[in-house]
Amino acid sequence: MWFQRELRIGPGDLNEVIYGTAILASGGGGDPYLGRLILMQALQKHGAKTMLDPAKVKDRWLVVALGAVGAPPIALEKFPSLTALAAAIATLERHLGRKVDAIVAAEAGGLNAVVPIALGLRLGLPVINADGMGRAFPKNDMMTFGIYGGRAAPTAIADDHMSSVIVDADDNRTLERLARSAVIAMGGIAMAVTYPMSGKFFKTAAIRGTLTLARDIGRVALAANHQKSDPIDAIIGYFRKQASPRRYAAKLFTGAVLRHAPKTDEAFVRGEIAVENRDSGEICTLEFHNENLIARIDGRVVALVPDIITVLDEDTGEALTTENVRFNQRVTIFGLAAPEILRTPEALAHVGPRAFDIDLDYTPIETLADA
Amino acid sequence: MWFQRELRIGPGDLNEVIYGTAILASGGGGDPYLGRLILMQALQKHGAKTMLDPAKVKDRWLVVALGAVGAPPIALEKFPSLTALAAAIATLERHLGRKVDAIVAAEAGGLNAVVPIALGLRLGLPVINADGMGRAFPKNDMMTFGIYGGRAAPTAIADDHMSSVIVDADDNRTLERLARSAVIAMGGIAMAVTYPMSGKFFKTAAIRGTLTLARDIGRVALAANHQKSDPIDAIIGYFRKQASPRRYAAKLFTGAVLRHAPKTDEAFVRGEIAVENRDSGEICTLEFHNENLIARIDGRVVALVPDIITVLDEDTGEALTTENVRFNQRVTIFGLAAPEILRTPEALAHVGPRAFDIDLDYTPIETLADA
Repeated sequence: MWFQRELRIGPGDLNEVIYGTAILASGGGGDPYLGRLILMQALQKHGAKTMLDPAKVKDRWLVVALGAVGAPPIALEKFPSLTALAAAIATLERHLGRKVDAIVAAEAGGLNAVVPIALGLRLGLPVINADGMGRAFPKNDMMTFGIYGGRAAPTAIADDHMSSVIVDADDNRTLERLARSAVIAMGGIAMAVTYPMSGKFFKTAAIRGTLTLARDIGRVALAANHQKSDPIDAIIGYFRKQASPRRYAAKLFTGAVLRHAPKTDEAFVRGEIAVENRDSGEICTLEFHNENLIARIDGRVVALVPDIITVLDEDTGEALTTENVRFNQRVTIFGLAAPEILRTPEALAHVGPRAFDIDLDYTPIETLADA
Repeated sequence: MWFQRELRIGPGDLNEVIYGTAILASGGGGDPYLGRLILMQALQKHGAKTMLDPAKVKDRWLVVALGAVGAPPIALEKFPSLTALAAAIATLERHLGRKVDAIVAAEAGGLNAVVPIALGLRLGLPVINADGMGRAFPKNDMMTFGIYGGRAAPTAIADDHMSSVIVDADDNRTLERLARSAVIAMGGIAMAVTYPMSGKFFKTAAIRGTLTLARDIGRVALAANHQKSDPIDAIIGYFRKQASPRRYAAKLFTGAVLRHAPKTDEAFVRGEIAVENRDSGEICTLEFHNENLIARIDGRVVALVPDIITVLDEDTGEALTTENVRFNQRVTIFGLAAPEILRTPEALAHVGPRAFDIDLDYTPIETLADA
């Protein structure tokens, strides 16, 4: 299934796709509830959409990555519309003097993996079955397109009040800083169109098949749920047996939420989640910066960014974004090896622990499990 | 002299022009010391520059207003270069797909009135003898070009690190907010190119002859200084007799600085200056927000924004920006009626006391003097 990169997504695939993207997001990527609403509306209005196989992207195309940017809790209150996103694309096209040929998700997440599908349906634009993170990260310079040499500039940002900003900067971290300030000035949430790039470069740096992977994860998990078996076990089985390349996946912890203290500033949500296993007495803590970054059990590190750490509700099996975890909620913490493209030295310089001020070298989740 | 709007500015005019622009600035407009340096270097390198008579601006021209934006104290530490300003123009030209035909100062001030001259010399661009404020104000939406119906967007902002931002917004206050956030993200100071407008519109809204007025003020004041007579009296005499239209001008107060508490945040400098007359025991207080906004003597209001309130060093006769006033310094506070174009109901809605959260109706300085 993993190889099927030309993927048709219709109303019947909605639940599977949303479920899977939320699992991949490591606690970020936007609220899956919003993602479901937006994709459902778009599918109802325009019908199904076939995701383009990345291999079919033409070298000369202009490809852009896009998504909602900002502090996730703010998005819940005033989510910017597809109209704002369409305006951001139009602004960038005018600025570049060129039409966009295809769009791709900036990140894999319950909201941001599907926003491009809804926009592609509305504008009739090809949507590539890929993304720029393979999970979610809090910053624009953390996309593979930047890690592997692409330029995020010019980036267009727009809000629902028809304001827009085009940011240009020589390095992607400066661009992230300037773009972030624009998002804050727009009220903490906005739509961004970034990394205008050739199709040729896109194919060197993209994480391919994201939507197929999400749909597959959703399919095995929801089937397991339906059969009253454990969806996480089904996902782990999928990654051990069916996915290619295979990726290490494991249940890291199970317990009840003991503490959850998210702090939202204008730009991000940060904090810590503590989960207690009342049988063993062990405590698992997660630190997050929009996304979960590090998991420790009684102080011992068991997973580290860029590997994926996702909290799921034990009853429903649904992935929870970092801001949506509730006190006393019974949860399972799921760990998944990051795609290899995020584990290279170049990538770890941008998305490894130290990029998040965690003073640890990166150790793969499978190595930590063996220790 | 007031009518001479085609004005040649050479090295011999430097002191007069800088002196006059600083007087007009109401305590803002950038540091005249920086303005002098920048203009001197440009004149030394490129020779004299003839300021264009606003009447000669062609209807179809693309005119832009420009200047440094940010908290004045930050400018002293890291003033952005003309290179950043040239980059902002180039960015805007690329975005608009059109070359700029002439430039004009955003505001009258010791720095910002002369920055366009230096840039015009470097780029060989016509510089119009006019400005968009007739004084200095802290915000972009306070230009006559905005007050009288012009659109500030798109505005280009650039810094010395080759970063740039193009801001678009339907209303000028939103644009100011978004542009300000970019300036803050750039470190608190940047160069802006704003109000791209037709020559036809420019002529309806510009404040004409700014540099001639500044040169004339400087000329009479420096001549008086040379003759050991009072430069402020000379300026007052100029406005009573020679300037056309005549404008009310007066010495509001003389004394020593008792208190000066400027607070610089990322964007602005705000605070209060108190001056004591040790003979009469009276105290004059000025509130400022980059520029002086209101002058009170023992609590009685004697001048109100948009009328001009400028503090001068009593010994040197030089105008002091709000951040440059020193404790115990002997100063004279000079008041000057704003140009009529700033005193209309439309203008007062943007630059009257209430626009600065001062809960008073505007009363002209000459009326306050009669009361």
